[in-house]
Amino acid sequence: MASSSSSSPQPLPAYAKYTHFLTTSPAPFVAHVEINRPRKLNSFYEAMWLELSRLFAQLSHDPDVRAVVLSGAGDRAFTTGLDVQAASQGPLVAARSPDGPGDPARAALALRRHIDEFQSCVSAVERCDKPVVAAVHGVAWGLAIDIACCADVRLAAADASFSVKEVDIGLAADIGTLSRLPKCVGSASWVKDVCLSARVFDAREALAQGFVSRVLESKAACVAAAVQTASLLASKSPVAVQGTKEILNHARDHTVAESLRYTMVWNGAALQSKDVPEALMSGLKKTKPRFEKL
Amino acid sequence: MASSSSSSPQPLPAYAKYTHFLTTSPAPFVAHVEINRPRKLNSFYEAMWLELSRLFAQLSHDPDVRAVVLSGAGDRAFTTGLDVQAASQGPLVAARSPDGPGDPARAALALRRHIDEFQSCVSAVERCDKPVVAAVHGVAWGLAIDIACCADVRLAAADASFSVKEVDIGLAADIGTLSRLPKCVGSASWVKDVCLSARVFDAREALAQGFVSRVLESKAACVAAAVQTASLLASKSPVAVQGTKEILNHARDHTVAESLRYTMVWNGAALQSKDVPEALMSGLKKTKPRFEKL
Amino acid sequence: MASSSSSSPQPLPAYAKYTHFLTTSPAPFVAHVEINRPRKLNSFYEAMWLELSRLFAQLSHDPDVRAVVLSGAGDRAFTTGLDVQAASQGPLVAARSPDGPGDPARAALALRRHIDEFQSCVSAVERCDKPVVAAVHGVAWGLAIDIACCADVRLAAADASFSVKEVDIGLAADIGTLSRLPKCVGSASWVKDVCLSARVFDAREALAQGFVSRVLESKAACVAAAVQTASLLASKSPVAVQGTKEILNHARDHTVAESLRYTMVWNGAALQSKDVPEALMSGLKKTKPRFEKL
Amino acid sequence: MASSSSSSPQPLPAYAKYTHFLTTSPAPFVAHVEINRPRKLNSFYEAMWLELSRLFAQLSHDPDVRAVVLSGAGDRAFTTGLDVQAASQGPLVAARSPDGPGDPARAALALRRHIDEFQSCVSAVERCDKPVVAAVHGVAWGLAIDIACCADVRLAAADASFSVKEVDIGLAADIGTLSRLPKCVGSASWVKDVCLSARVFDAREALAQGFVSRVLESKAACVAAAVQTASLLASKSPVAVQGTKEILNHARDHTVAESLRYTMVWNGAALQSKDVPEALMSGLKKTKPRFEKL
Amino acid sequence: MASSSSSSPQPLPAYAKYTHFLTTSPAPFVAHVEINRPRKLNSFYEAMWLELSRLFAQLSHDPDVRAVVLSGAGDRAFTTGLDVQAASQGPLVAARSPDGPGDPARAALALRRHIDEFQSCVSAVERCDKPVVAAVHGVAWGLAIDIACCADVRLAAADASFSVKEVDIGLAADIGTLSRLPKCVGSASWVKDVCLSARVFDAREALAQGFVSRVLESKAACVAAAVQTASLLASKSPVAVQGTKEILNHARDHTVAESLRYTMVWNGAALQSKDVPEALMSGLKKTKPRFEKL
Amino acid sequence: MASSSSSSPQPLPAYAKYTHFLTTSPAPFVAHVEINRPRKLNSFYEAMWLELSRLFAQLSHDPDVRAVVLSGAGDRAFTTGLDVQAASQGPLVAARSPDGPGDPARAALALRRHIDEFQSCVSAVERCDKPVVAAVHGVAWGLAIDIACCADVRLAAADASFSVKEVDIGLAADIGTLSRLPKCVGSASWVKDVCLSARVFDAREALAQGFVSRVLESKAACVAAAVQTASLLASKSPVAVQGTKEILNHARDHTVAESLRYTMVWNGAALQSKDVPEALMSGLKKTKPRFEKL
Repeated sequence: MASSSSSSPQPLPAYAKYTHFLTTSPAPFVAHVEINRPRKLNSFYEAMWLELSRLFAQLSHDPDVRAVVLSGAGDRAFTTGLDVQAASQGPLVAARSPDGPGDPARAALALRRHIDEFQSCVSAVERCDKPVVAAVHGVAWGLAIDIACCADVRLAAADASFSVKEVDIGLAADIGTLSRLPKCVGSASWVKDVCLSARVFDAREALAQGFVSRVLESKAACVAAAVQTASLLASKSPVAVQGTKEILNHARDHTVAESLRYTMVWNGAALQSKDVPEALMSGLKKTKPRFEKL
Repeated sequence: MASSSSSSPQPLPAYAKYTHFLTTSPAPFVAHVEINRPRKLNSFYEAMWLELSRLFAQLSHDPDVRAVVLSGAGDRAFTTGLDVQAASQGPLVAARSPDGPGDPARAALALRRHIDEFQSCVSAVERCDKPVVAAVHGVAWGLAIDIACCADVRLAAADASFSVKEVDIGLAADIGTLSRLPKCVGSASWVKDVCLSARVFDAREALAQGFVSRVLESKAACVAAAVQTASLLASKSPVAVQGTKEILNHARDHTVAESLRYTMVWNGAALQSKDVPEALMSGLKKTKPRFEKL
Repeated sequence: MASSSSSSPQPLPAYAKYTHFLTTSPAPFVAHVEINRPRKLNSFYEAMWLELSRLFAQLSHDPDVRAVVLSGAGDRAFTTGLDVQAASQGPLVAARSPDGPGDPARAALALRRHIDEFQSCVSAVERCDKPVVAAVHGVAWGLAIDIACCADVRLAAADASFSVKEVDIGLAADIGTLSRLPKCVGSASWVKDVCLSARVFDAREALAQGFVSRVLESKAACVAAAVQTASLLASKSPVAVQGTKEILNHARDHTVAESLRYTMVWNGAALQSKDVPEALMSGLKKTKPRFEKL
Repeated sequence: MASSSSSSPQPLPAYAKYTHFLTTSPAPFVAHVEINRPRKLNSFYEAMWLELSRLFAQLSHDPDVRAVVLSGAGDRAFTTGLDVQAASQGPLVAARSPDGPGDPARAALALRRHIDEFQSCVSAVERCDKPVVAAVHGVAWGLAIDIACCADVRLAAADASFSVKEVDIGLAADIGTLSRLPKCVGSASWVKDVCLSARVFDAREALAQGFVSRVLESKAACVAAAVQTASLLASKSPVAVQGTKEILNHARDHTVAESLRYTMVWNGAALQSKDVPEALMSGLKKTKPRFEKL
Repeated sequence: MASSSSSSPQPLPAYAKYTHFLTTSPAPFVAHVEINRPRKLNSFYEAMWLELSRLFAQLSHDPDVRAVVLSGAGDRAFTTGLDVQAASQGPLVAARSPDGPGDPARAALALRRHIDEFQSCVSAVERCDKPVVAAVHGVAWGLAIDIACCADVRLAAADASFSVKEVDIGLAADIGTLSRLPKCVGSASWVKDVCLSARVFDAREALAQGFVSRVLESKAACVAAAVQTASLLASKSPVAVQGTKEILNHARDHTVAESLRYTMVWNGAALQSKDVPEALMSGLKKTKPRFEKL
Repeated sequence: MASSSSSSPQPLPAYAKYTHFLTTSPAPFVAHVEINRPRKLNSFYEAMWLELSRLFAQLSHDPDVRAVVLSGAGDRAFTTGLDVQAASQGPLVAARSPDGPGDPARAALALRRHIDEFQSCVSAVERCDKPVVAAVHGVAWGLAIDIACCADVRLAAADASFSVKEVDIGLAADIGTLSRLPKCVGSASWVKDVCLSARVFDAREALAQGFVSRVLESKAACVAAAVQTASLLASKSPVAVQGTKEILNHARDHTVAESLRYTMVWNGAALQSKDVPEALMSGLKKTKPRFEKL
């Protein structure tokens, strides 16, 4: 990936095929993905989450990418979540349609398949081998939280407005927020509060609860900080960075004993990497290490 | 549930049979349960936890209740925990009595049965289908923590005094604190500190650690805030709210993958609810939605 | 364990055999272990972690010890982590050596065995039946975090400098940090940030994130506070304290239901202890309880 | 429990209150429970499973009972399962009734509560502290399999006719068969075959697959063999027998490492029993041991 | 799906696009998939497992299919497993190639990605919502066992020759056999024996160990029996059959308590199906039920 | 390891230090361990299980050993289990001694430590990297079952007499039988039967239940068959064989999804082995492969 001027990044050709996401490279080995439907406040409909999934699968295997920044296009929203108008033609409504299946068990199957696919698409952000830094700004409701929870590091602009909004449309959030948010922060009381009430919380509160790591004064500053963080990660051994992401994600869902065993087996291969002597030597010599593609 | 004046709530007839708990309805679909033994600082003896269990089982299935507030009667204590005097005639002592079983294996069986029942009674607060908002004030020691950990949202009055007191009476807390507190807050070092030392901590510290979500200046303000939160939750779709509670409790104890799968199956039925179009429409029309009983 | 003057503690004879660790008793039933290689900033090589394991196994079974303080000798470092020079002759390098095994599968076996032993040695701090209070000061990088995560309570001196340093030497931390740190603090975003970037964080940040419970102004003050905490724990029933540690460690890795069941079985024996009436009586009589050795 | 003549057992007074189950004591410390609705082929309706649950809870705590035999009254059936006629007035139908809830999400809640209670009642057989020997004979369809899977040892009469019948009434078995049968036998292909097809299988096949341990030539012989087995178990240390049942049930659902840890904690109390020297001594002296009540 | 003469089934048009698999419909709602590379003894190369995955995903969602039969084309083999010649150009060799990555950590990543995709493709047989009956005949080595373990019911022809062959080519089987075979049969000693030794076992031994449910005298008889079983399953309520498959697969990997809970939530929707009264009524009236598509 | 005549194997020098076990090498890369206290029917006391643990740890890392056979010395017993006379001076009795701890909680700690060490020693047979073939003959009671369950493949002589004997001495088996036996065989009813009753079962029954894989007519034939099996395993790639053992042991305790993931990571290193081309080539050339030490 050729480094490009950070003031005016060019679209990355390999990612030009995605119509709802703009992908640029603001720094070496860093990809910046923007949810790109600003006129609709970056709200999602089905084609978008299918595309999101393919995009992150490509990033995951792209040897020219070592870290990813994710933000929304435009000044107003990271994303407002589901495009309610589009959703009104989807399976949520079909399941209850008078012309629909009519049988609750058959409707449940259709809904399960819909949810399964939707969950899997959003989880692509988490499955991405490379660390993802989310720069959250403006309106970040509903699906915004599902997606942000899949990122590895979360930064917020001061104007960010968060809400686990699903209860307000009559449903329990099912694309990942209820599964991941309790494991992103420490306070169970706070998680229950915001998930049960659907109330809005701001960047300061998100920081105090540990949902985001830093708050920046504006969207521009937030994206710049995210790019800076991603650049730092991209300068490290990709074997070490990607292994660390994998082991931390595994640790979240396993006991310490299981995690130690998995780490041991993982590093049985990873420690044979040339990156170890390269990193050690450059550390001693105070030089910049160069790591092979991964 | 008929709405009643919040300034002077009347006892709910269906709950008048409980002698140690006063249940009123300060707002539509909200039940307020007070631990009602103020002369003994709301300390517990066996008949009380048996009653607590039956009370919350009834609330769990009562279609007129959509959210619950839990506090202590009187100004001095949420509860001081176990009534030590009463406990001195219970199985804790019998197990060691010279006239008791005499066989440590047989004493262990008696103790396991005692603990099992006690745990199950207190867990009724967590099993309750409806969200429970605890308003913690005054002395909140020992069993107070076990109970508060079963609530969904925890608020505190400024005068609240917390302690995981059990180590001071020679035992490891066994009614839930050691199982749930580590999953209510983020700092393992703090959990170990307060559980191993039995030291008292105040409302400010509880807030800083995320054990409670808010601190109010007095018991009255704390109960009022809890009622307000409960009222907000009670105004939402009960299908959405109760599903959210269930899925969050499930998420606490499962991997993300397990949680996503469970959510998918849960919502296969829940998304067929009429609450979804009701909530969507009222959101668009800016009207107050009306949800069927659940 | 005879109490000794806290101003000038004497080495404990039973622990004089360890060459890299100095063990004293600053207070009754309290052992203070110092990582004792100050000229090398307490950096570790293989003989040291083997000794660490034996030392904590001995403390675990020593009836004269009820709480442990762990710090580094000297003013500059808790520990800087792995002694890189020594490591350069170890299996990390052998695995890649031109004269080494040559077969990646065989090299992986050697590495797994190395990691397995290393993990097990450091985990001895966690396995120790007695609570361990870590007093972290100065440089605390790499292995310092692995070890500190095994302690029960963590205090820091204001000069402490923390780093999950492994990524900077080309590897994912594999001696416990990635397995335990996510369970020591609440913010997943912060954990990913510090583990992926290897950046240094200070005592204030460690406190804000809940990694440590208190920050003291100096190493001396930090060690004194750790001794004070350990003394408090050592004054309690050892049956209660050690049971609490065991149940909390179990709870971290199990569901609430599993934890409650385990607690019930554990206390089936523990509640038969004479410590319970001893603690109850001394509480009522305001006397200092005396507990039998454990 | 007074021993009674095995040729003509008398009803046990403490269990006379149960109207659908006849409980006798064919041997010392052995209770024999018969499903007692022979005119309806021992088919179940709701009052029966509620009673089953209370009955086994009482047996579980009854110090005069050390082993239980479970069979059906009459010659024709262990049980034919659900009483379909009675079920047609139950929640299965109400959920779809035109006058019923009407909302699939609300109907799902009613069904979940119904299933939860039903499952819990049948699981009482498994929760019973004392080992249960099922003597299966005649028709044993549907619920018969759910119940038999909860027993510890299964014997069959040659005339037994088994079927996981639920698929034939349009549903997946939900009272335990699908959860427990795969853990009662080894062949997954056979489990899928009989559960997916609802085909009948006989005692010989049940034996070959390991679902039952023995086949006897008649119901009478089967019950006699079950009583004999139960008598043998009742002659052993109840601490040892009940501990073995508990640990085996725990082992089914846990890893070997978890099971070993649980066993260790369990036996920390159980090995202090006087039953150990009593059993050891009577073994050496070739005398019949006498164990205290448990 | 139009029923076709079982003596001469026609290829199903919707599945004509798959080049390595021939799909016909020998009975109503039954699809018969043949691994169709008989000249190479149905050995697999990469394009084949990718196609297998797409084929079973289509079957899973095809409302005209309610049960699937899987066999090999030709008389000689179900499949001989991996096409070793083709594999010699694949990642197994590339990882060690002198022109290959050269870095064991990078080679490990390539291998993990290869295995991950391969595992996922074969698991499509297990993920298929519809029950799959495997008719195993002739040579069934290596990958044949991985695939057969994903089927629900396994039948064998008398000439079937099985082998977990991977050890003989220097590797531990990694496409599912070692993960699933221990859960398909009861004897751990037998599983270790055949997996560690790679020895061949015949249909009689497979039957005795419970790996297959029936042995038929020839391939033709085996396929006919598989079609007959599949036809029986296809005649039942698809809600009931597919729910049973799902719950049994879930049960394999969960505790009984987890499985009961999942079943309860699943049936909260499924029991609302019209299939329940349809099946009940046709059972009472002795008529053939007709179930809506699913 | 030099091959030695199978008719008169010589003790292996590296294992001559073990006083209760005789280790010989009846075939290349095969070690034969005999429990060597025939005058006491190979019954165990504490020094023996400590030695067993060290012995199998050495075998596990010995590059000259690729498979292990385990039997008892002499004709009468594999082992009769615990030496009851020796045990009467151990912690089982001390815990109840009038001069002993006196406090049930403190006695429980002593017992837990005793059991923990004992379990860990016996588990060394399972932890051994190399496959272990148990040749069980004569009396095989109590501890014999705990040990046999840790082996990978179990063969029996026709004269073998098995019993899970512990209930007869008043305790639930706690050294592994109750944890592992349910995962060695398929029939839960049979496991409960033999564990609850302590009844003796013979080799034929052990074979029918799948506890052993083969029955040979005599001890000599059984040991010879075990050596033959071990020799076969020792002739294969040690990377493949040891990986297969590890993955199968992991699979026993994990879900299929977890097992597939672990296998993928494991083989990321293992597939890079030179053993793969060596095995492939020798398979094609029909030559005997030669594998490097591991």
